[in-house]
This record gives sequence, C-alpha cells and structure tokens, in this order.
Amino acid sequence: MITSTANAKIKRIIQMQKKRKARDEEGLFQVEGIRMFREIPPRDLQEIYVSRSFWEKEESLVREMADRACIRPELVSDSVFEHLSATRTPQGILCLVRQKHYRPEDLTGEGTPFVMVLDRLQDPGNVGTILRTAEGAGVTGVMLDAECADIYNPKTIRSTMGSIFRMPFCYVEDLEEGIRKLKERGVCVYAAHLEGKQSYDEADYRGPCAFLIGNEGNGLRPQIARMADAYIRIPMAGQVESLNAAIAATVLMFETGRQRRQGEKAVCSRPV
Amino acid sequence: MITSTANAKIKRIIQMQKKRKARDEEGLFQVEGIRMFREIPPRDLQEIYVSRSFWEKEESLVREMADRACIRPELVSDSVFEHLSATRTPQGILCLVRQKHYRPEDLTGEGTPFVMVLDRLQDPGNVGTILRTAEGAGVTGVMLDAECADIYNPKTIRSTMGSIFRMPFCYVEDLEEGIRKLKERGVCVYAAHLEGKQSYDEADYRGPCAFLIGNEGNGLRPQIARMADAYIRIPMAGQVESLNAAIAATVLMFETGRQRRQGEKAVCSRPV
Repeated sequence: MITSTANAKIKRIIQMQKKRKARDEEGLFQVEGIRMFREIPPRDLQEIYVSRSFWEKEESLVREMADRACIRPELVSDSVFEHLSATRTPQGILCLVRQKHYRPEDLTGEGTPFVMVLDRLQDPGNVGTILRTAEGAGVTGVMLDAECADIYNPKTIRSTMGSIFRMPFCYVEDLEEGIRKLKERGVCVYAAHLEGKQSYDEADYRGPCAFLIGNEGNGLRPQIARMADAYIRIPMAGQVESLNAAIAATVLMFETGRQRRQGEKAVCSRPV
Repeated sequence: MITSTANAKIKRIIQMQKKRKARDEEGLFQVEGIRMFREIPPRDLQEIYVSRSFWEKEESLVREMADRACIRPELVSDSVFEHLSATRTPQGILCLVRQKHYRPEDLTGEGTPFVMVLDRLQDPGNVGTILRTAEGAGVTGVMLDAECADIYNPKTIRSTMGSIFRMPFCYVEDLEEGIRKLKERGVCVYAAHLEGKQSYDEADYRGPCAFLIGNEGNGLRPQIARMADAYIRIPMAGQVESLNAAIAATVLMFETGRQRRQGEKAVCSRPV
C-alpha cells in the first residue's frame, strides 16, 4: 500500500493532472469515480488506484474490472488518496486510461454524418458537456481545433460522464482544412452567426451536416465562419445577445435530432 | 484610495463573496466586470469599487454610471483589487447591487406563463446558465426551492451574463405549494422523467406551461415529480442516461420557444 505523498507514482499522477504535456507523453488520461470507472473499456484501462476504504467496500467490483484488464489494482492510504484526487470529495478510485486517437474520417460515422466543430473553446467544462450532450443527440463525431481546451483535462473528463469512451473526437492542426474535408464528403456546414437570416429551426438537417461553434467570448474566427455553407440564427427573447457555447450547441444538436427522428422538416409551411 | 487589504470595506466585500448570510443580511450582491456593469439598473446600483488602472482607462463610463445612481465610486489600488476580486483575471470593477425580491405571482409574466421550476440544483454555474438561457428562450420566471444554490453566489451571477437584472425568479420554502399555485392559475406542469412515455417534442407547450428540473445527481424528488400533470422524456442516442440539468432545461426551453414562434404543434400527425 502506498502511504506517502512522496511516492513516485503519486507524484507522476499529480503531474498528469496538472500538465497536458505529462499526459500526452505517456498517452494516458485520468478517470475518477465509480460511475465512470464502470464504463472504462477493459482494453484501455491501464492502472487502478484505490483508497483503503474504497477497497474495503468495493473489492469485488475492483477485482472484476482489474481481471478483465489483466492488471493489478494499487492500494493507497485514505490520506494519500485525498492528496491524489482532483476532486474535493474523492470517492476513492482513480484510473489511468489509454488516450484515444481517432482520424478525421472517423467523425462522420456509419450513417448520416452529424459533426460538431469547435473553434477555440476555452472552458474544459463546456468541451466535456458538449461531448456528453453530443452522444445523447446522436452526433457522429466532434472536431476540435488545436487551441481548444484539452479533452483529457480532468475537469473535461468529469463533465463527459463517460461519453469520452464512446464519442469519436479529433483535434486538427488546421481547422479550415478539416472543414474543407467535411465539405468534400458532402457535409453541409452551418454556423450559428449574428448575421444569419434564417432561424435555426427553419433549416433542414436531415442530410449530412456539421455545426461550427465558436469561442465563449469572441465567437467564431472570421476565417472559420467564412467556411460555412449557411449562417443560421438562434432567435433570442429579452436582451440576451448570445448563449453559452455548450448551450448554443445543445439547441442545434437537439433540433437536428428532433428533425431526424420525425423524418420531416422543422417548418411545414410559412405564409409568404 | 484604498491601499490596504485590512481596510474594513475590503474585508466586508470578501465576507459577502464567501457567505450567503453576509450577502442576505445586507440585502446586496456583487457584480464584477465591465460587461455586466453596464447592465446594472441605476436604481439598484449601491456601491462601485474600481482599480486605479481601470479608473485611468474608463473614468468617463464609471462617472456616468455613478452619477445616474447618485453615488461616488471608490478607488482601490491595483494590488488590493486583485485581492478583492473573485476572478483570476480581474477587470478592475466590482459593484454592490441591491438584491431583487419577486413574488411567486411575478413568475407568470404578462403573456402566456412559461416557468422553469428548479428542485435542489446544487451547481451555481447551472443555476446561472439556466437564468441566462431562460431569458433568451422567453421564459417568464424561474422558481427555485430553498435548497438550490444561491442565485447571488458570485459564480452564479457571472454565469447569468446580466440576465440576473431582468429575469424574475423566486425562492419558495415549500416547492409543492409553489407548484400547486401555478396549477391553480391554469399552468400545465411537465416533468422530464425516465418514466415519461411521450417524447418532449410531442407535447404542446403553446399554452401556459412549467417544467420541473431536478438535482444534478439524483433528479427530481419523488414528491415533486408527483406534482407534474405529464411526464415527458428526452429521447437519447448512445449510452447516455441523462443530460446535465442546464442542458436538459435548454432542450425543453428552446422547444417551447420554437413551438410558440411557429404557432403550431411540434408534430403534425403520427400514424396510430
């Protein structure tokens, strides 16, 4: 059992929590808590650290997961585990999981492509929430530019609530090039934009489509917005100028899901 | 100019940042940043604190707002302001604003009532985001039970992006009683619930309606869920079990906005 915070393994995990570089060098990321623990694909589960009290309560669950991954769980004293955890009220289980590497062509899925494209999103919670919501709405993949928050930040991972294990995503160095490739594959690209004349619920998203979501403070960069085939607008009541990035993405993702479920266009007819 | 962190005014503001009790005793809350500063209703603006560098850049704006509110801005040295601010990169302006007190009957607005009811929401960011999104979606008011996160928490205030000044909200001691009163006024109450058979986009929200949103981890308490006239379900792709509370609220709020804009039912007809 590890009983000292000076232990090299503990120091390494803390480094990985804080620094993207440390995570990427090892090709690993951290997952905390029992809910997400259950959802880790066994082939990606590399290391398990459990607090003494968690082990006493959940030994059989931990053993079962460890056996499937062919690894041995590491016991940590409760006080060292508190030091180790990135959360305020640690549950007592932390794992290291292999990072996923999808290719841009993995984002368009098997059926009708439905891609979310994130331009310079800074908030890890927003990126994680978009991943989780995207899975629920039937998105086929998420494309991020290299300046977006790191998807393997512990805060992002927590907000995905497990979707990190299932939703294809890909960071691209050149976002314009990435969008161009989507268009070459017949994907219609929409940007929520103040200059949009068409309301978001008047467009037809039943075909292959992608949505561009901009930075929290500044919106889409002009060179990215220019890549869109169409500008759409989310009509706003009151004096609200814009929505939070994850909220705007949600409105568009669930409208697309709704149209695809119903198999009909959002607006039946409008008086001319 | 205030140049010491030991100054009584500075200590008082820090107390108000940390403690709900300190805010409520004074009947004030804090607003930081230039964007929200501009939106403070002059009659509610009580005190202005500006850093020396902010004053040098924005003196005329600060003077204008202060004159309208008939108060004198207080200068603070840059280093003391950094100590004062609740944010990591302070802009240099912090105000104390009078708390709002709406009555439950203020939540149903002038037109067709459209109320969001929050049951034990714990995350200040979620509460703030719901307020902001609610204004954008045309919600008439937000009802919260007494256990919800404090709307005057600086983190909540930040997430509202100014909607705190415009969106009617009300904490009620007895949420069941609050919902009962809505029903007496002809409001149809919907709960997003795993037992819901009807998909959320198959119900008609053009009449007076309210939506019950539950706690992040545990959903709605059974006694609150029981108050609903109808259970609805947000259909989910993938293996997602539930959405973040603010995200689920967004899906329902924008579907309601969409139906009301279009003036027609979501689904035209379904084969029996």
